Amino acid sequence: MKKIMNDPTQIVDEMLDGLAYAYDDIVTRIDGFDIIQRTAKKTGKVGVVSGGGSGHEPAHAGFVGKGMLSAAVAGAVFTSPTPNQVLEGIKAADEGAGVFLVIKNYSGDVMNFEMAMEMAELEDIEVASIIVDDDIAVEDSTYTQGRRGVAGTVLVHKIIGYYAGEGKTLQEIKEKADKLIPNIHTVGLALSGATLPEAKKPSFELADDEIEYGVGIHSEPGYRREKIQNAAGLAKELVTKILDEFDNDTSAPYAILINGMGATPLMEQFVFTNEVGKLLAEQHISVKFKKVGDYMTSIDMAGISLTLVKLQDEDWLTALNTSVDTIAW
Amino acid sequence: MKKIMNDPTQIVDEMLDGLAYAYDDIVTRIDGFDIIQRTAKKTGKVGVVSGGGSGHEPAHAGFVGKGMLSAAVAGAVFTSPTPNQVLEGIKAADEGAGVFLVIKNYSGDVMNFEMAMEMAELEDIEVASIIVDDDIAVEDSTYTQGRRGVAGTVLVHKIIGYYAGEGKTLQEIKEKADKLIPNIHTVGLALSGATLPEAKKPSFELADDEIEYGVGIHSEPGYRREKIQNAAGLAKELVTKILDEFDNDTSAPYAILINGMGATPLMEQFVFTNEVGKLLAEQHISVKFKKVGDYMTSIDMAGISLTLVKLQDEDWLTALNTSVDTIAW
Repeated sequence: MKKIMNDPTQIVDEMLDGLAYAYDDIVTRIDGFDIIQRTAKKTGKVGVVSGGGSGHEPAHAGFVGKGMLSAAVAGAVFTSPTPNQVLEGIKAADEGAGVFLVIKNYSGDVMNFEMAMEMAELEDIEVASIIVDDDIAVEDSTYTQGRRGVAGTVLVHKIIGYYAGEGKTLQEIKEKADKLIPNIHTVGLALSGATLPEAKKPSFELADDEIEYGVGIHSEPGYRREKIQNAAGLAKELVTKILDEFDNDTSAPYAILINGMGATPLMEQFVFTNEVGKLLAEQHISVKFKKVGDYMTSIDMAGISLTLVKLQDEDWLTALNTSVDTIAW
Repeated sequence: MKKIMNDPTQIVDEMLDGLAYAYDDIVTRIDGFDIIQRTAKKTGKVGVVSGGGSGHEPAHAGFVGKGMLSAAVAGAVFTSPTPNQVLEGIKAADEGAGVFLVIKNYSGDVMNFEMAMEMAELEDIEVASIIVDDDIAVEDSTYTQGRRGVAGTVLVHKIIGYYAGEGKTLQEIKEKADKLIPNIHTVGLALSGATLPEAKKPSFELADDEIEYGVGIHSEPGYRREKIQNAAGLAKELVTKILDEFDNDTSAPYAILINGMGATPLMEQFVFTNEVGKLLAEQHISVKFKKVGDYMTSIDMAGISLTLVKLQDEDWLTALNTSVDTIAW
């Protein structure tokens, strides 16, 4: 497997340097740490920090900037950042009003972010957090108790970033996050596995005519392998599964995120979007916000995920539509 | 080769519908045509139209919106749009001050856009145009006399869109475009070939340890195949070739665009960017603008290109930094 890289063990370090070099107007890298911090000036509001293993670019550093994340902490590829790294991210993000952590539900992330939280509190920084578990594909998985956190996390960054920008307190943000999370559901599918920088071949293999539903963003197993269907069939599987999870509730409008996994061209993503739009219209679902592209990838995996957010609170749509200054939103 | 699609002959039609559905706040599709038009209200300024074969997403429809393109005309995959389609794009973009066409240098595009230009003039719409030939890899190619137009075209869209937004006349824009084009140079490299929707395998094959420099965005041949080097070596080849073309002139600052070809993860793009940054710093080149991501792709080709713009006119930097309302800039 060919990759544009130097020493694979240095890939995260060099990626972060390249990202900070390219977008030095928006972000800066904290010296000696794998942390990308926004350059926007501090205004005494709640800081928002996220992060996790690398390999999901543009997540998470691509969402650092005014109106979204204060800082993102990057672990090695598909590996949680250490508590020390997370602690430094919290310190960097603190503007005196405390720091809110958005954590994807992987055992390593949860453990290390929570340890960092305790360490920060010993240094008198108030910290609250939310665990994102939007992936409805499977219960428990290779690295997870319960459900995994996937592409919906980016929408959490956006909405929480909005609340922080509005000057909400840490306690208010925690309450709003608790209300938000149960209203975000995602399912993905893979056409191919991801190849890690040090590996010679993909983490898993699919036959030439085969796909797998529900694969995780670290190549964790999904819920069914079968022959690839056309885009209409693939969309129907994902839309049906997610709407079932929402009890087919059409009482509130929805937001949708169609997310490419890294190697799936936008052409295919838009064809898929077209099918999703038709299915939601058939179900008389009002879609108030849509976004399509690569937001939470799995290195070079070919595949796509669909996220729906039930917009039970009017703030959430405002939050999604508010402009921000980041690399990748 | 697996793709998320329905009937491959309908892929452009369905993609455009999906794109227009997802971003109906920014763009709209013209009924019965493969044209994406901006929703921004008409203000009597020069319209800017571009387009070409599909398969280069987000180009060109992703750059339609306030401050950039007025409309983008999409041909079939890797196939020029017909003169009739281009004519409709011109008519849609016309606000009474004439329309400026940005044409990538492929024989089919040049012929069809110029024919549309003549047809528009018969309908009393004043039209001017520029041909973009930024790819310095080879002279003449499969579909081209002279040099090909590639990723640098997106920067032309941005700068011309700025001039149009500033209310410049068609004649002024033509003069500025003529001055701009010789200052934009690009070279790319491929790790794999693109697979067309109706094809079973990639347009060309590279060995497991092989890359090709200078491959075009329609899989046209490049200038050298060799064993893949590390990111530092790949960056050195491209930077050296482009700076040579600029006679290693460090008298003016530069803008850079690192462009992913469709299947190359951002992680690799940022590692490559880091190497480019180091090489330019060594040459004491002042880089005032940087952008990294998928802008002019080749379906699912793995690869990357580097574009440098010598910022001989201060306007160009202002133009690149001015915010726009598009899907993908």
